[in-house]
Formats: sequence, C-alpha cells, structure tokens
Amino acid sequence: MADRVEDLAHAFERFPGIGPRQAKRFVYHLLTVSQSDRAKLSKLIEQLGADVRQCPECLRYWSGTNTLCNFCNDSSRDDSLLMVVEKDQDLAAVERANAYRGRYFILGGVLTLSGKGQIRERELIERVDRRIKNGLKEIVLALSATSEGEHTADRVREILEPLREHVTLSTLGRGLATGSELEYADAETLSGALINRKEA
Amino acid sequence: MADRVEDLAHAFERFPGIGPRQAKRFVYHLLTVSQSDRAKLSKLIEQLGADVRQCPECLRYWSGTNTLCNFCNDSSRDDSLLMVVEKDQDLAAVERANAYRGRYFILGGVLTLSGKGQIRERELIERVDRRIKNGLKEIVLALSATSEGEHTADRVREILEPLREHVTLSTLGRGLATGSELEYADAETLSGALINRKEA
Amino acid sequence: MADRVEDLAHAFERFPGIGPRQAKRFVYHLLTVSQSDRAKLSKLIEQLGADVRQCPECLRYWSGTNTLCNFCNDSSRDDSLLMVVEKDQDLAAVERANAYRGRYFILGGVLTLSGKGQIRERELIERVDRRIKNGLKEIVLALSATSEGEHTADRVREILEPLREHVTLSTLGRGLATGSELEYADAETLSGALINRKEA
Amino acid sequence: MADRVEDLAHAFERFPGIGPRQAKRFVYHLLTVSQSDRAKLSKLIEQLGADVRQCPECLRYWSGTNTLCNFCNDSSRDDSLLMVVEKDQDLAAVERANAYRGRYFILGGVLTLSGKGQIRERELIERVDRRIKNGLKEIVLALSATSEGEHTADRVREILEPLREHVTLSTLGRGLATGSELEYADAETLSGALINRKEA
Repeated sequence: MADRVEDLAHAFERFPGIGPRQAKRFVYHLLTVSQSDRAKLSKLIEQLGADVRQCPECLRYWSGTNTLCNFCNDSSRDDSLLMVVEKDQDLAAVERANAYRGRYFILGGVLTLSGKGQIRERELIERVDRRIKNGLKEIVLALSATSEGEHTADRVREILEPLREHVTLSTLGRGLATGSELEYADAETLSGALINRKEA
Repeated sequence: MADRVEDLAHAFERFPGIGPRQAKRFVYHLLTVSQSDRAKLSKLIEQLGADVRQCPECLRYWSGTNTLCNFCNDSSRDDSLLMVVEKDQDLAAVERANAYRGRYFILGGVLTLSGKGQIRERELIERVDRRIKNGLKEIVLALSATSEGEHTADRVREILEPLREHVTLSTLGRGLATGSELEYADAETLSGALINRKEA
Repeated sequence: MADRVEDLAHAFERFPGIGPRQAKRFVYHLLTVSQSDRAKLSKLIEQLGADVRQCPECLRYWSGTNTLCNFCNDSSRDDSLLMVVEKDQDLAAVERANAYRGRYFILGGVLTLSGKGQIRERELIERVDRRIKNGLKEIVLALSATSEGEHTADRVREILEPLREHVTLSTLGRGLATGSELEYADAETLSGALINRKEA
Repeated sequence: MADRVEDLAHAFERFPGIGPRQAKRFVYHLLTVSQSDRAKLSKLIEQLGADVRQCPECLRYWSGTNTLCNFCNDSSRDDSLLMVVEKDQDLAAVERANAYRGRYFILGGVLTLSGKGQIRERELIERVDRRIKNGLKEIVLALSATSEGEHTADRVREILEPLREHVTLSTLGRGLATGSELEYADAETLSGALINRKEA
C-alpha cells in the first residue's frame, strides 16, 4: 500500500528551498486541517494553469481575459524602453518601486558559470526586432548583481550585438543598497555609488 | 475573475514557516512544472486523508489496513509503559533512537503560557484509566524542554494527579545534548547532567 | 585584593561588540600566553597614542612624521572635492575602491534619531570655509545608507546650507550592491539603480 | 616607522574569535578613548600575571593570597569526588550550576581527533594517586559532548585505567538540554534522556 505521507513529502521536497524535514512538516500540517481545506488546496493547484497563462508578449504569468497582460496592453506605457528581467518576481519588484514605465521581457532563467540554465534567446530577439520598428530606443538589462546575473547579462549583450546600432543597451547602476554600511561596501559598489552620486 | 496566483499563494502561507514571499515562490515554481505534475501533487493532497487515518488508540496518523497502528498493534511492546508526546514527529524521533519499547499517546498540541493551544485531555485520561487495568505502571511525559513543553507537562501532571497512586509519572532527563559545549550549558542542564552521570 | 581577572574582563567589555563572556575568554586567553607576550600587548596599547595622532586637517588617525597625513599632504589630489565620512574605516573603504582622488574630512561619529552622538560641526565649517577659497567646488556626503547615516547627512546639509551658493552638496548614489538579488531590492534601491543605469 | 595601528591590530587578531576587521575596530576604539584609559588597560594586561596565579592543586587561574585556591582550600568540600574539566570556564559553569561540592582538576586543553592539543596527564595522575589515599572514590569526566570532548575523555579514561580498581570513573549524562525540542534530538541524546528519566 502506497505510503501517502512519504509520497506527498517527496513531492513537497521539490519546492524551492524545502528539504525533507520541512516537507514532512507540511504533510503533518495538511493532516491536521479539514478534508475540505485539503480539497480546496488541491483544486487551486490543479487549476493553477487553467486561466493563468503566459502573456504571449512578455512571457510572464498572469491571469486575465485579454490576450496581452496588463503591462503589455497598457497604451500609456513607454514603448521606447524594454526591460529584460530573469523572472516574474523581478518584474514584481520593479513594479513595486514604481519607477519604470517601459515594457518588459522575462528571460525565464539565468545562465550559470558552469553552463547550465536556459534563457529565451529566440523570443527576445524576435521581440526586440519588432519593437525597434515601433520606437524602441533602449533595452535595460535588469539582472541581479550576482555572478549568474552578470554572466546572463553578458550573454544577452552578445546576442543583441547586431542590433546595437539601433538600440542602447544599459544595466542597472551599482550603489549603496538601503540599510548598508559604507565600511563594508566593496570596491565595485563604492565606485558605482561615487560615479552615481547625486545632488543632495 | 479570481486571481489564482494570489489565492494559491495565500493557501501556501498557511503552511508552517512559510511567509508571503516563499508562498509566491511556490506558486511560480508550480507554474513552471507541467500540468501533469501539478495534477499529481493535487491528487496526492486531495487523497492524503483517504487511507491515512488516525490510530484510534494513540491518535497518531498512519496509513495501513489494520484497525490499530503498528505500534499499538505490536504485542511485543511493553504495556507497563506509556509515553505521552506532543506530535507525530516527536514519536518518530523517539522511534529513531531505538531506545523505547512501550506504548504511545499523541497529545495533538502544546499549551502556551498565554493559554492558547489544545491537548487531548479527555482521550488521555480514558486511555490511562483503561491501561492501568492492563498493567500500565509508568507514564513518561516526553515533551520538549521548552517553556511550552514544560507548561504542557505541568498540565498533564495535573490532570493525571488522581491516578498517581496507580502509576508513576516521569519526565525525560536533562543533560548535555550531543555536540554541546559544557561552558555554555545552563544550570538546569548541568545539574541534570551531574545527577544523571553514568559509569564511564 | 583587586580581582584582576574581573577588572580586565570589565575593561574588555568596553570594546565594540564584546560582551561579558567573550571578555572573560580574552582574559583567560591572556593568562595562557607568556608574560612576555602580555608585556608586548601592554606596551602596544600604552604607546598607541605616542606617534599615532590625528591629522590636523582631516582629523583621521595616522602615524607618520609630517604635520599633515598622506592624503592631506598629497598635492596630486583634487582640491575641488571634499568627502565627508563618519569614521576612519569608511575612508579606508573608499581608498580601497580606488575611485576617489579628492580630500577627506572625518565627522568622528553619527547622529542617532534619538539625539545621541556627536559630529565635528565646527571643525567641518572651518575647513569648508577655507577650502572654498582654495577651489573647493563639491562636498560629497559619504555616509552609510542607514537611518543614522541619513540623519547625519541631513544635519550636515543643514549646517552647510549658508555655503550652498559656493559649493555643490552631493550624496552617494543608491543602487544594487554587488552580490544582491534584484528580487529582494527595495523600492529606493531599485529606483536609484534605474536612475543610475549606465551603458552596458 | 612602525605602524602602531597595524601592530596592535595584529596583536588583537590573536584573541579568540577575533579576525582582522574586528581587531582594527578595537584599535580605532582605543584611539578614541583617553590616554589615561589606554594606560589603565595597558597596566591591567601587564599585571595580569602579577597575583593571578595557578592554584598548585587544581591548576586553575585565580587571584588571592593563599597557597591553594578557594575550591581546593575549602575543607567543607567533598574529597571523595574529583571533577576533571577542560578549562577554567567549564569549572565556572559547573560552579554556577551550584550542584557539585567535590574537588576539581583542569586538564588545560582538549585532544583533537587529528592528534593536536595537550592535556596535563602527568599532573592528573599524580593528584589522583594522592587523593585516592585521601578518600577519593569517584572521578567525573566533565568534558563537552563534542567529538573533541569525547576523544579527550577516552584518553583520560585510558591513562586512569590502572587506578580503576580504586576509583569509579563517570561521565556526565546525556539528555535534553534546556530549550531544546524533542523533535530534533538525536538518538544518543534521546536514549540518554530516556535512561535518565526522573519522577515528575
């Protein structure tokens, strides 16, 4: 007889950041809730894909009835700017900052230094090509300041090289992050912060 | 239209130790797996209760066909001992130690100092009553050495008071935990370790 | 008879970040080294002030024979820039970044939101006054991106207000710090990083 | 010219748990205190050995005028018990627990699995020999529950083997440490806690 506790624990172990012990805790938690609650969760998971879809333009996940997601559909946004991010959560962070009104494209991953990972190269080139004809002037490579992020930005720069006569490529500025102490900032962060100083 | 991403994220936020950000990460993770994988997880959750049941004797969760779970059904185990634990994971830890051959009872929770929490008082008394007639001699209160664990042990001691002429109540010994440094052991741990010293 | 172990432990407790237990560890450590080693340490501490002095210009601590420290004495440095930092360690971090060739001034502290702390206001104004006559054009407020750092920068801006027709005041740019993930960057950091984007 | 800041920082780096950055912080801290405070600290360090001495019996460090330290001199303490600890801080922890009235011996170190470290074997044997003639009945090996502590306890057991017909050797009991959760206790801790259970 299948050991359902073990099977479900193994399924939860596939969740990001979840090991065997926490996976077991999830199962025991679910054992203590009502069958009705388990059924609700089950249904939400099963139907996650139902009307959550990928926007055909920026390739982020959203739920709605229009063909394009709200960011791609919004005519008030700036077509001269395209921001390339790794994943949906990064787009969410940028939107929360309320400081960008251009368009988006989700790479769907990062490239590790050891050669793993995948990004949507073909789709990116197709959109950039098309958008250049529609007024695109600058592409912001908004990757994390990690070695994977930089490696990925290098690759994107490489594949967009042929188009550099038509668009500017830019990366996010380095500087002091909120809450950080100057004493511990490394050389790259500090020189970025110095170059990027602004009138007080 | 319901925002399924938000709804599922909220459902995951109810999992132990999971906040809004990690809940969102779970949803995005599930968006990246196949519909088939989502369906499998969904089914495992939905059917978790199907043949996982609570043993009517010790009240732990298990899956099997017998009426009683394997620990309660095992005639080779020692009926003179009953160990009271907070939850299934504690029973699992004791079984892994391979140092106890008596019976179990799961309290199903702990009592916090502020008065929250619930434990199965009625069920415990009923089983202790019955087991005393069947040779029960000692009840081990195997709660954590935390303030909640001690508070819960106090309460269990209180409700079993009328039966103390028939059974001994005991608690787990304090002492140096594996890997701990003597220098940092508090007074209670050290005096326990001293009282509990054994021939080397 | 004075308890030297306790007395020395109390003295070490005044060190930044050192509590009673670690202070005691220091004393026990010193008990295990030779009297000769203790004497050497004792002498280094006693003579710390001997030829370590404060540069009369920037007020940092240095050891050398000239009147002015090497940064203030260096004629190749840029007199049009003055960087105001909290403490010596911040100056050291900026010098390590190898991205600044102006002059320095050490505030000697930060101002906390609750009104504690002290900074060298009088000395700062005197030097800024004098340096303006010698070509000073911009003062960089290089404080940490913490609330204390920002509070201190506000105060410095306030006291230099009368001189703003002669010099520009600037602060270090915000942005992604090396190693940080975009997903976790707050709004201020991200909008700073966006404003400060540079050609890739 | 000697760089006193660097020299003193290097000296502080020898303190337990102190790296280059914290060592520098100590030096900067000392630069900000008065010369008088530096002189006091200097003197305390220089004179640490002056009347802090090692008790010739237990080999712990103490300051006082008697030949023997207060624990060895106290006639009300129990000569039938001798506790062997690694260092002074362990003795302090045991005394704080207020649960032991026997005699002490400080090993002065632990033995690592790779063969490093030193303990006072000769001195221990001499004292045990003498104390046996004066009523010693039990030696408590009060080492940490770490692999080094256990390795050291094994060695001490080994060198005291010839004397085992005269004295009992004991080690501190394992069990749940204050504040620990049963769920995470390992097998050794749990079986110790079970064996060492006490009446509630």
